Amino acid sequence: MQKFNASINFDHRLVDQDIRCSQAHAKMLGKQGIIKQGEAERIVQGLESILDEIKKGDFVLKPELEDIHMNIEARLAELIGPLAGKLHTARSRNDQVVTDLRLWLREKVDELVPAIENLQLSLLKQAENNIGTIMPGFTHLQCAQPITFAHHLMAYMCMLQRDKDRLLDSKKRLNESPLGSAALAGTSFPIDSDYTAKLLGFDRPIRNSIDGVSSRDFALEFLSTAAICATHLSRLADEIILWSSSQFDFIKLSDCYTTGSSIMPQKRNPDAAELVRAKTGRINGALITLLTVLKGLPLAYSKDLQEDKEPVFDTVETLAIVLEAMNGMVNDLKPLPQQMAASAAVGFSTATDLADRLVKIYQLPFREAHKIVGQIVILAEQRSCQLSELPLEMVQTIFPQMSEEDLASLTVEGSIESRTSIGGTSTKRVKEQITYWKEILS
Amino acid sequence: MQKFNASINFDHRLVDQDIRCSQAHAKMLGKQGIIKQGEAERIVQGLESILDEIKKGDFVLKPELEDIHMNIEARLAELIGPLAGKLHTARSRNDQVVTDLRLWLREKVDELVPAIENLQLSLLKQAENNIGTIMPGFTHLQCAQPITFAHHLMAYMCMLQRDKDRLLDSKKRLNESPLGSAALAGTSFPIDSDYTAKLLGFDRPIRNSIDGVSSRDFALEFLSTAAICATHLSRLADEIILWSSSQFDFIKLSDCYTTGSSIMPQKRNPDAAELVRAKTGRINGALITLLTVLKGLPLAYSKDLQEDKEPVFDTVETLAIVLEAMNGMVNDLKPLPQQMAASAAVGFSTATDLADRLVKIYQLPFREAHKIVGQIVILAEQRSCQLSELPLEMVQTIFPQMSEEDLASLTVEGSIESRTSIGGTSTKRVKEQITYWKEILS
Amino acid sequence: MQKFNASINFDHRLVDQDIRCSQAHAKMLGKQGIIKQGEAERIVQGLESILDEIKKGDFVLKPELEDIHMNIEARLAELIGPLAGKLHTARSRNDQVVTDLRLWLREKVDELVPAIENLQLSLLKQAENNIGTIMPGFTHLQCAQPITFAHHLMAYMCMLQRDKDRLLDSKKRLNESPLGSAALAGTSFPIDSDYTAKLLGFDRPIRNSIDGVSSRDFALEFLSTAAICATHLSRLADEIILWSSSQFDFIKLSDCYTTGSSIMPQKRNPDAAELVRAKTGRINGALITLLTVLKGLPLAYSKDLQEDKEPVFDTVETLAIVLEAMNGMVNDLKPLPQQMAASAAVGFSTATDLADRLVKIYQLPFREAHKIVGQIVILAEQRSCQLSELPLEMVQTIFPQMSEEDLASLTVEGSIESRTSIGGTSTKRVKEQITYWKEILS
Amino acid sequence: MQKFNASINFDHRLVDQDIRCSQAHAKMLGKQGIIKQGEAERIVQGLESILDEIKKGDFVLKPELEDIHMNIEARLAELIGPLAGKLHTARSRNDQVVTDLRLWLREKVDELVPAIENLQLSLLKQAENNIGTIMPGFTHLQCAQPITFAHHLMAYMCMLQRDKDRLLDSKKRLNESPLGSAALAGTSFPIDSDYTAKLLGFDRPIRNSIDGVSSRDFALEFLSTAAICATHLSRLADEIILWSSSQFDFIKLSDCYTTGSSIMPQKRNPDAAELVRAKTGRINGALITLLTVLKGLPLAYSKDLQEDKEPVFDTVETLAIVLEAMNGMVNDLKPLPQQMAASAAVGFSTATDLADRLVKIYQLPFREAHKIVGQIVILAEQRSCQLSELPLEMVQTIFPQMSEEDLASLTVEGSIESRTSIGGTSTKRVKEQITYWKEILS
Repeated sequence: MQKFNASINFDHRLVDQDIRCSQAHAKMLGKQGIIKQGEAERIVQGLESILDEIKKGDFVLKPELEDIHMNIEARLAELIGPLAGKLHTARSRNDQVVTDLRLWLREKVDELVPAIENLQLSLLKQAENNIGTIMPGFTHLQCAQPITFAHHLMAYMCMLQRDKDRLLDSKKRLNESPLGSAALAGTSFPIDSDYTAKLLGFDRPIRNSIDGVSSRDFALEFLSTAAICATHLSRLADEIILWSSSQFDFIKLSDCYTTGSSIMPQKRNPDAAELVRAKTGRINGALITLLTVLKGLPLAYSKDLQEDKEPVFDTVETLAIVLEAMNGMVNDLKPLPQQMAASAAVGFSTATDLADRLVKIYQLPFREAHKIVGQIVILAEQRSCQLSELPLEMVQTIFPQMSEEDLASLTVEGSIESRTSIGGTSTKRVKEQITYWKEILS
Repeated sequence: MQKFNASINFDHRLVDQDIRCSQAHAKMLGKQGIIKQGEAERIVQGLESILDEIKKGDFVLKPELEDIHMNIEARLAELIGPLAGKLHTARSRNDQVVTDLRLWLREKVDELVPAIENLQLSLLKQAENNIGTIMPGFTHLQCAQPITFAHHLMAYMCMLQRDKDRLLDSKKRLNESPLGSAALAGTSFPIDSDYTAKLLGFDRPIRNSIDGVSSRDFALEFLSTAAICATHLSRLADEIILWSSSQFDFIKLSDCYTTGSSIMPQKRNPDAAELVRAKTGRINGALITLLTVLKGLPLAYSKDLQEDKEPVFDTVETLAIVLEAMNGMVNDLKPLPQQMAASAAVGFSTATDLADRLVKIYQLPFREAHKIVGQIVILAEQRSCQLSELPLEMVQTIFPQMSEEDLASLTVEGSIESRTSIGGTSTKRVKEQITYWKEILS
Repeated sequence: MQKFNASINFDHRLVDQDIRCSQAHAKMLGKQGIIKQGEAERIVQGLESILDEIKKGDFVLKPELEDIHMNIEARLAELIGPLAGKLHTARSRNDQVVTDLRLWLREKVDELVPAIENLQLSLLKQAENNIGTIMPGFTHLQCAQPITFAHHLMAYMCMLQRDKDRLLDSKKRLNESPLGSAALAGTSFPIDSDYTAKLLGFDRPIRNSIDGVSSRDFALEFLSTAAICATHLSRLADEIILWSSSQFDFIKLSDCYTTGSSIMPQKRNPDAAELVRAKTGRINGALITLLTVLKGLPLAYSKDLQEDKEPVFDTVETLAIVLEAMNGMVNDLKPLPQQMAASAAVGFSTATDLADRLVKIYQLPFREAHKIVGQIVILAEQRSCQLSELPLEMVQTIFPQMSEEDLASLTVEGSIESRTSIGGTSTKRVKEQITYWKEILS
Repeated sequence: MQKFNASINFDHRLVDQDIRCSQAHAKMLGKQGIIKQGEAERIVQGLESILDEIKKGDFVLKPELEDIHMNIEARLAELIGPLAGKLHTARSRNDQVVTDLRLWLREKVDELVPAIENLQLSLLKQAENNIGTIMPGFTHLQCAQPITFAHHLMAYMCMLQRDKDRLLDSKKRLNESPLGSAALAGTSFPIDSDYTAKLLGFDRPIRNSIDGVSSRDFALEFLSTAAICATHLSRLADEIILWSSSQFDFIKLSDCYTTGSSIMPQKRNPDAAELVRAKTGRINGALITLLTVLKGLPLAYSKDLQEDKEPVFDTVETLAIVLEAMNGMVNDLKPLPQQMAASAAVGFSTATDLADRLVKIYQLPFREAHKIVGQIVILAEQRSCQLSELPLEMVQTIFPQMSEEDLASLTVEGSIESRTSIGGTSTKRVKEQITYWKEILS
């Protein structure tokens, strides 16, 4: 049962936060005269010594003390004697542990934001190098319209920016201090919750002590934000895997992010991309874990809440490593422009350009233009040629006004440059996006 | 296969949005000279007639036309002839459908926010009426410390406020217009995406056309926000069910939110609360549905994305109804103050008060005070009496300095009033919270 | 609130089961003398008339009667008068509704099993036609070793067989009758639960009345079985999408399972496969829905259990349609053997064959053989040729004993035929599998 | 990247299975003459030495060797020299790792089945001791009808039996050997897959080599079976928490499964039950993790599949510990029969008995009897008395034929004993269940 109840095998990660939280609490107790100033200072110094021991690797966790809080308090008692027993005045493990977790998660969010930005910067660099790299834009994994590689990468830029914004927005709700909620009802000691909140970098104390010890929506919000971000990365990872296949052959990944084998040293198995894709699973799982734990749970503190930590810890670690791996891959991958461009012309990918031209030049209604082009496409398919390679007279049997110029205009490059609407694939618009993101990220 | 592909049995809900979206598009086409102004006006009027038909119930959906867009365009052709074929110039179903969905969801978010506020107002009203209603605060579903019903309700106030804030934050990302992304690459027509965005109340056009048609994180963010909110409601629902049991007997629900039976007309089965609790399930399910759909999905548009709508539709409807049901229940429930108060004294719930007093008056370290009170509690348990009913001399065998006054101070009311830390359960602090929320909600 | 409580908009699907369940109950009541035989017969006939009305479409559901049971009982009262009031003797809605659901699900399972078999038969047919169709076997989506299309398809045969077995196993637990559990405690009427169980085709009455009305693991087991099957189908669907891309070009789907557009009539968007892939999402979602509903739910009946039906209904319908769609696709798809075979030779896919040969003929340890072949592969890569095209003398600089014959043996066909282990890709083994499945499925 | 790719920090759990699997493989290689008998023996012995080192704690894992297989092979090479390089003949890491995992999981399933049986035996013991312990049966957490504690516990007996049956059924699909599938296509060495399957206790070799390395439905089936079982346990855990509250006060948990605090040593916080309830979350999460990983994953082996292990490992461990904890709690809990019985009479819980009596004695239709009793219940409620305490003449104003005997018959005990239908709460039926389970479990 001790093993079942104990949290020390995972909550030890909160050791730094727990000590800093206790130091802030002790300072406040001293300032408010709840304990003597000198006592507060000795407690703070004792805790500092423990921090030092941890840094040096001298601090030994005792599983029988069950959690990180008791481990630290017990060590403090060894260092400064019975005075250690005053540290826990005016607080409870209930507010202490959730304060630790909020502190920890806030610090991790502050690390994840630049990790996303690093990936964005790599996307930006690849995009800048590939403004002129033509590739097919896919619908239903069929070549649909020519685009550029830069344009494609910028789509992920937008997704990641929203992921980052979600993380930043979540901090508004995460960064409130539950310290002072005590067991659940607050405390009768004349504490200064504003002061501890300030010392710990929180925006303010939480407004209701029951909410303080019972709520974990800050963790749910983080997990769902992470799940969305991981889903975005899984999409890019899946593309990298596709692009690396010999059938696509759009990119070449460096050895850092692939594995071969002794017998096939030439092989570039995109293991890293596969892991990034798969790890979405465990983040979705962590989200469901905590949603299930919290469903129908009456207030205020219940032991069920101990199950909040592992999904959060695992998700932070997973998201950090998949961002790093993806950053590395985006940096290192080499596009193979010839294969990409060859694919871009497949499937009469300029057919919509011809239809648009008929609308613009001959004022056909859109739907009619489409029907006409459809018939022309069938012709080309039967002759196994490109639209631009069709004999004009043959095309004119379908649309008499058709000119040589109309057909000649149907190049992949022309198609790309024509898409000048906001966010479109024309060089002008893609450069505009690149400039925008450069400013945002600098 | 037609049935398998068709989306008309669910996407008909987008009919209003689809028409308004088309009207904005037609106006823009006219303004930009892509079609003639007169043509644009006739299209807009034709669409307006369809809106009228819908309001009157005269518009008949044809399943064989598969989706709402084709149904409307076909009807438009009946009304205004081949000109209808010009409406689809410079757009695609890919950008059209996601624009519709964003519009629809934005409008629903704008309805859900006041629905949350209504529930908050009901919580506020109940809290104001129950500032003096004493109840036990629970940890581990054991009576831990006395609190007030108002204080307890205010915890949900905070959760709901964060739920609302999350919804509002999500609008920043939701409220961008993908119109103009066309199939995926943008369009070669000289469209004005800013203009359509403005006409439809969007903050701006989306920045990348591939992102515009491929991304659904706006839907994932909504679903996870809804799941968190539903989880909060499930906790309150579970408490309402507990409180309504004859074992707790803390509240009485009105007939509106309970059911009896012909044989037990006195029964008050909390069906509504049970449904609120259970419906968390379907919202969690909807979130997993869309996360699964999007996992590893290559860009840009794939038919998989058609599966984005039903989870969003069902979740909006579910969240709206559970908020309404909970609002009704919170409004109508009658606390039974005597039973609540009786429970509040159970389990030596003022023991921590005594310990705090020993710390304050006799300067004992917290941990030592706790040990002493623990021994006194055992005494009281053995005599089956309250702490305040113990003979002083008996208590003094454990802690000689204990005074009559110390024991006399141990009232439930005194305990409550002593918790004066920010967010604590004292009347002063609860009134402060009520005042704060009144301002926020007015 | 009526709308919130009502289940009629989804439980109407149980109408047949509800009537048959009531007929069995009435017969039993008559047989046991709880009601008179003549009364029982009139009730049974009255219910039969309602069944007729339903078949004719004459039965009108009244939403204000909230559920299917009350709708039927009310109609029965119109048809046979107050006697209808005797039907509900010795039962409760609690046991009635779960009996209906078990009956319904059992019948659907009995339909899904042959649906899986149909798909298996289609796989078998394709496999028989493609015993000699060579394609690359992939690891990490990289061409690894040559296999045959038949061999690949047989992998899905095995998965589907296990899916079917799981469904059949689940029937052991599903097919027990909760009728007679009444509200929760059983009944004091001298009912014959064995008799009703037998009439309704159940294996036996359930052994504990509380379990009878409270448990829904039969539904969870179905949902998880469906989720696993859908996951298998999503994998095949993903492959069909890949194979249909112009980059792979391994298969051609018929028009029935693809869509084009007016402008690209040649396009074969694999919409059906994309929907099959995506619909895994809603089945996973349904599973999470019910797991969440049941988490921590005290016995016996709670209104929460009303939320069991929609996920089950939706999953049955979804699984049926994805099986049908996949069956159609597997039947209709045309492999393109040349493209497949060309891909099979890519990436030195016979390198392991060479290594195995070195082990067999020259008794090299496996690991050493692999290293040597690795060096030869590098040579071939540098010369951009196949292994079999390397000059012998060049290869002998790496492994002096290498013979012309060794290199000549490295054909794709030879590689395939050599894999003669059980379940391997050699023609012999694949034919063996086909024979096995033919027997199993006949 | 090495850290990202490495699996050694979790797959080390497969060490035993990996060695036994390799020993079986080596024996087979020897028997078939693929390597020499003497070589096979030396390999087997070398592996045995490693097993010994592991038992003694002398085997040091090297993270740089990435996985358990390479760690073992490297150590083998140290022990027996280059011969170690022959072990991997005719196999691949792809079939090796999934064979290890199947072996491991089969052994764990074989441990979980008796763990469930232990819990069943504890339920049986409690039930036997509480055949006469009266408690309320709940619907909607309202007291509905009197039952016995034994009857209630037997409901969980049934659920657990089905959980066990599901585990046993799953073994049919789990217990097939993928060894011999090699990388994906089988092998050209003349292996004997039947022999290795037999040596390792598998029922047979898997029928298709691609299925062998690609499929993980055995793991999904385990995870979903575990999720269902955990859901059952979460329901009992929730009841234990409710019953332990001072409001219910139905049971007393022993100190082993509760925690108090220094200040409230009398407290019995049901921490263990809360953890059991919460841990459903992580098992649901693990299920979603693997479902997400496998969604849309093309065949055959991909690195994604490496993510199969941690959810399975964690779920096995979690399920084992929650079964053990629940077993302990069920064994140790002490029912408080007086409080339970007092609750059983609450809420006119014998009203249905009166209605049934009116049907039986006065031949009233069920629905009419219910209406009459409903009116009598209102009378009793107005007078705040039990049904049996109502003055007869007052009852006769509602139903003139009512006799003194009718009212007198309304005891809680009488109600219980009257429920004689199969699975009902009468002593006879509960004893019948107990006898049945005793036989089943012996």
